[in-house]
Parts: sequence; C-alpha cells; structure tokens
Amino acid sequence: MNELITLSSDFGPPYPAAMKGVLLSATDARLVDVSHEFPRQDVRAAAFWLREVLPWFPPAVHLVVVDPGVGTVRAALAIRAGDHALVGPDNGVLLPAARRLAERAEHADGASDGDGGTETPAVEVSEVAYDAPASNTFHGRDVFAPAAARVHEVGVGSLESLDGVAPTDEYEDLSFPDPTVEDDGARGEVLVVDGFGNAVTNVPGSVLNGRYGESVVVDDAATAVVRAYAEADPGTPVVTVGSHGNVELAVNRGRGDRAFGVEPGDPVRLSW
Amino acid sequence: MNELITLSSDFGPPYPAAMKGVLLSATDARLVDVSHEFPRQDVRAAAFWLREVLPWFPPAVHLVVVDPGVGTVRAALAIRAGDHALVGPDNGVLLPAARRLAERAEHADGASDGDGGTETPAVEVSEVAYDAPASNTFHGRDVFAPAAARVHEVGVGSLESLDGVAPTDEYEDLSFPDPTVEDDGARGEVLVVDGFGNAVTNVPGSVLNGRYGESVVVDDAATAVVRAYAEADPGTPVVTVGSHGNVELAVNRGRGDRAFGVEPGDPVRLSW
Amino acid sequence: MNELITLSSDFGPPYPAAMKGVLLSATDARLVDVSHEFPRQDVRAAAFWLREVLPWFPPAVHLVVVDPGVGTVRAALAIRAGDHALVGPDNGVLLPAARRLAERAEHADGASDGDGGTETPAVEVSEVAYDAPASNTFHGRDVFAPAAARVHEVGVGSLESLDGVAPTDEYEDLSFPDPTVEDDGARGEVLVVDGFGNAVTNVPGSVLNGRYGESVVVDDAATAVVRAYAEADPGTPVVTVGSHGNVELAVNRGRGDRAFGVEPGDPVRLSW
Repeated sequence: MNELITLSSDFGPPYPAAMKGVLLSATDARLVDVSHEFPRQDVRAAAFWLREVLPWFPPAVHLVVVDPGVGTVRAALAIRAGDHALVGPDNGVLLPAARRLAERAEHADGASDGDGGTETPAVEVSEVAYDAPASNTFHGRDVFAPAAARVHEVGVGSLESLDGVAPTDEYEDLSFPDPTVEDDGARGEVLVVDGFGNAVTNVPGSVLNGRYGESVVVDDAATAVVRAYAEADPGTPVVTVGSHGNVELAVNRGRGDRAFGVEPGDPVRLSW
Repeated sequence: MNELITLSSDFGPPYPAAMKGVLLSATDARLVDVSHEFPRQDVRAAAFWLREVLPWFPPAVHLVVVDPGVGTVRAALAIRAGDHALVGPDNGVLLPAARRLAERAEHADGASDGDGGTETPAVEVSEVAYDAPASNTFHGRDVFAPAAARVHEVGVGSLESLDGVAPTDEYEDLSFPDPTVEDDGARGEVLVVDGFGNAVTNVPGSVLNGRYGESVVVDDAATAVVRAYAEADPGTPVVTVGSHGNVELAVNRGRGDRAFGVEPGDPVRLSW
Repeated sequence: MNELITLSSDFGPPYPAAMKGVLLSATDARLVDVSHEFPRQDVRAAAFWLREVLPWFPPAVHLVVVDPGVGTVRAALAIRAGDHALVGPDNGVLLPAARRLAERAEHADGASDGDGGTETPAVEVSEVAYDAPASNTFHGRDVFAPAAARVHEVGVGSLESLDGVAPTDEYEDLSFPDPTVEDDGARGEVLVVDGFGNAVTNVPGSVLNGRYGESVVVDDAATAVVRAYAEADPGTPVVTVGSHGNVELAVNRGRGDRAFGVEPGDPVRLSW
C-alpha cells in the first residue's frame, strides 16, 4: 500500500479541490500537490516537469490531469513504473516521467547487467475502463481521481488486478526532441520556461564542461558561461546548467526568456 | 470528530499560512486548501465555487474567509449541514454550499418522502460570539480560524454546545439569479469565469439536450453545441455543459470569456 | 521531535514539489506551505512575511529558500529559536523571524525578569556544512531540504549534535529600517505590498491611536483613518493598521499601492 498520492494538473484553483474531495472520500492517502499551474493544455511542458520532479518522491500514485482531449474517446491509463504508479489521460503526458521512474528503480535494484545497454526500462501500461462519467469536461474529478484512489487502495504492485484494468501496447507516447551536439557547437530548442524566466533547453549540460568562466555564442551573442546565476552581475544574460541537467538561458536576477527573446519551441544554437 | 478542515479564501499567499498555524496550534485536523485565489472580495463567486466543490468532500469543517466587511459589526457564523460544518462571515458566502450539502445529506439518508417536494433542506445557522480580536483586518486568523478549530474539536454534531454559539434566524443570505427558459431560447447571466476562461452561466445544461451537434444562437452568433471542448477545432467558440451542470461558453484551447466578450454579471441570451 | 515542517520560497510551482519529495523520502513530517510566491529574490520581503506568519505555528522546522546567491559560497544556516528551527541560506532572510520566535518563547516561559529590558532574545545560529550538491541552481532541493529533514529527525533541541553543524557568530543579518515618529507626524517606508494591494509600512500602528474617524496627511493628501477597510466607501483611500500591527495604506475594495502610487522601498510621510 502506498501512503502517498500526488496531484498534478493545469487547472488552477478551485478545480483540484474537487479531486481532493473525491480522493479523501475513498482513501486515507496523504495528498501532495506537484503543481496545478502547468501551462494550460501544454502536454509536453507538463511531461517535462513531471519527469524532473516525480523521481524525487518516495513510492506514490501520481494523478496527472493535463487533458485537452477531455470528454473525447481518448483512454485513461494507469502505468506502473518501479514502485510508483501514474494515472492520467492517454496523451503521452505520463510516459517520460514513467520511464525516468523505471530507470531509477532499475538503478536502485543494482540491476546493472554490465552490458552498458541503453534499452528503455520497462514500464507497464494499462488502460483503465470507465463508465460514462458525470461530466464531459472534468474527467479529473469523474474518471482519474476515482481511478487513482482505486490504484492506491489495491497497491501499485496489484494494479493489474483491478476490474477494468487491462495491459495495452497501444497508447500515445511523447518524447522530447533530440539536440545536435558537434565539435563547434550544439543545436537544440527551448523546452519550457520556468517561473523565474529561465529558458530550459534540451541541450545536455555536459557541453559546457571546460567552458566555465569563458563565453559561448548563443545564436549571435557572446554569453558568459557560469556555474551559478549569482556569478554574473545582476541583469547579465548567462548560460548555465539547470537543476534538471540541461543548458539553461538565464539572467541573474532577471528573466532569461526576455533577454534571449525565446519561448518554448524556439530553436537555440550554441557555438564555441 | 471530524478529521478534516478545508480552507477557502481570497487572500493569496502568505495570509492563509497564518490561519493554518492557528489551526495546527489548536487541533490535529488534516488541512486541505480549496482555494485561496477566489476573486478578491467577490462573495458571489466564492459562494458559487464552494457550492460546486465542497459536496465532493467527506464530512469536514469548512473554513471560509471572503470577507469584505472584515472589522465591521458583521457577525461570524457556524452552519451545520448534514455531517459538515461551515464557518465564516455573515455575508451569504456560506449559504449556497450549506444548502447543497444538506440536500446531499438528505439524499444519502434515502429520505425521499415521495412527494417530489422542492422545499429547501434544513441548514442550522448559528452565530458565533467573539471577543475583540487582535486585528480589525484579519479575522480569518483572529476570529474564524479559532472558531473552526473549536467546531472541529467538539465535533459537527455538537456545534451548538459550544460557548458563545447560538442559533439564529437572522443572517445574510445569497442566491444566484434564476434563468428564464422558454420554448425558443433561454436568458441568463454569467456567474463566474474559470481559469481556462470558460464563462459559466446560470442556465441549466438540460436546455442543450437534443441540440448536440447542432448550433444555437448565443446573443447574435450561431455557435456549435458540443459535449466536449475537443469536439471543436482549436480556437472555435462553443456552447457546452460544464462540470457544474450549467451552460458554459467556451473555446477549445482558448478563452471563452474573450471570444464571447463576457465577464461575470453579463447577460447571456441563447436562442434556437 | 517536531511533527511539522513548513516550506517557504519564491519558486512558484513546480520546484517546491521536488523539495517535498526529498522531505517525504527522509521523514514522515507533516508538510505545510507558508508561501512559494514570495516576491522573487526579494530577501527583505520574505523576511518580513516570515516574521509575521511563522510565530502563529506550533513548534516546527521552517525550511526557507529565497536564495539569490544559490551556488555561490554563501553558507547554509540552521537557527534555533525557542522550540522552532529555521533552515535556509545565509543571507539574512531567517533572522527577523528567528528573533520574533525567540521573543515569543521567552514570553511564554514567563521569563519576564522585571527590568523591562529590550535586549534581543537569544537565537542560536549554526552553519550547516554540505557536500558539493547535485546542482548549483537548486539548493532548496539539494542542500536545504535534506538539512531540514535531518534537523526534523534529530529534533530541534538536538540540532547542534548533527554532523557538520557548528555554531557560528558570523552570518548575514537583516533588519528593517526604523521609522521616525515625532509630535507632528511620522516618516517611514513601504516594506511590502500584499496581494490586495495594501502597502505595509514600517510605521507602528500606535501612531494612529486617537485619530480614528479623523484624517491624517499622507504625503500631501488628507486621508481618512479607519479601523476597518469597510468603514470607508468602496474606492476610498484610507490609512489603517494591518494585521501585523503596522500602518497600512489601503483602499476599500481597491488597491492601496496604486491609489497612493507606492511600491516597496518608497518613503511614506504621515502628518497630523
């Protein structure tokens, strides 16, 4: 049995409270909010943040509702990943986090088989059948919260034993674009912008190794490479590595997205 | 004894944390936020959302502080509604939720007496006396949180046994305007706009039965009637039924309030 | 052992959730958010609000991360103040709240020694050593949350027994500017603006004693002095005493900061 259910959505208040009411009517799980302020209906941004944040939690059921297709025929999924389960719509939002959680579980098991294999760790995806819900516009309350409560009650390890839960190979997947790293630079794109205005790219932070204290060219502008925002004067644009391990375009005490004129989806070119 | 205290306000952070500190100093109740982002000092909007959200919770004490009259002589109320209690200012904000909770409690009791009666279920309203509080500007912390803690400790069923708590018939009430439904259309108004920009009206969703897949005229514009936002192309204005059961003016992946040019209080006319 | 860990930051979602994951992986403490919406990188504003809010909590470990110097050599601190502990960066943000908590603890002990002394109550400041963290940009997750979990586990009373924790006299302090109160008026400044637009000054509310129902001159404008916002007509600028005990520039059902044209740091002059 898992003690914990986390909640994630793009709802803003007060809709998440209705989901909490449903969960607390069915379980005594501890509830923890991840965010209800994900960019609205932005499945990719939510998938990114969930991949970065959920692995810091102890075993839990993660209820995720970023669901532009609410009320259509898209399925409801429950995914097992190590000791964790994720419950949410079949639009890809769960997959990057599920794979990261499974990866961590394998590492924790010491299940290194010595072949340095890069095969994707197993995640077990199930479809969760549901009756016609009370609404066509709020499946978070009417479909996903009840499903998460059921998974919590039966326990992640017995997820597949639930009525109406059946393994599936057919589901929407989602992956982030691959960056291009070459001898004289890297090309990628902005994945998300955080609340500080830091523009998080898909370029791995390792490209900056050996370049700290120097500068690289971002698009056309020479830009200081720093380990910490505060190494630069306030207002100075910098390149650094964020807490997710990727290259970030930032400004000490300012907003990187504005200084670099970028938003999610924009291409980024680094040269050295 | 109730395990749960919910908190609702228009405060935004950090003021709700002071209320939590007060509650946790007096009880071991579990605290759950409903919203602290209700439109500021908008008693009607808060009353609407509370009516929609609180009935999803198991028995609880609901602390509600949307209180434009803070520091004046307005009374503090504690209302019993089924297994729930609501504590907050005497400005009507508690009543619609209290009546809905009482209604649900009667249904749950199977207390249908077969006469199809529409009489309002009983809610028991009490006034809670309070000493001169520490502040005239933050009764959430100084009056209502302590009162909610006392109700929690004694239990909803014994609310009236508390010192300084006396039943009353004189209190501010609040109801939502009635829509007009006729053969060729309906007239109502926008009650609230949610964070997605969906404009929630007071027109019952049942007027759309038999019209899905067709269109109705909203004010002067023919508008598609859909069951789910995603049935329309992104950017298309639609009419649908929200999770509260009322007609909603919406836009798939956009904001209905902007597309229809409406805000809370504006009249809405549907014709067919 | 303390049951409670509070969390405060300027992060906005979803970063605080990573800190919660770290805490819940290490402890079974109850987590309560104070705010994650403190004005970004504004150490003084956070210090003010923490001083006002934290004393309402029962004994707790308070994790505070407003940290413009993240990733630089600034130390991590753990401060003992009565039955409470505060954990956060060495930039002064913890000190005003710590002193207030210590003050309250002394009062609660009845430790009045009759000399009316105004000496600052003792707070015990320790530096917390930490290994090179996983990131240079998110010490909330990688340094401070683990430290708060360790303090919680050992208990506030045994804080100094933890490995790597050593008392220190060298730390950044922070205090609020002193107002000037004279026979014909007071001069101070705006410390913070709350979500309602109330401009909180450093001028003690006691200067308004005997002036309620009258008016004072704020900068150049005669302004009504009220006990409660609602004593004035909607839209009227007023002077009142906020829940923190200081003079506040406000507007009934409006924003004081806009009406008075002030923001944090601006001087305020009251005359009578």
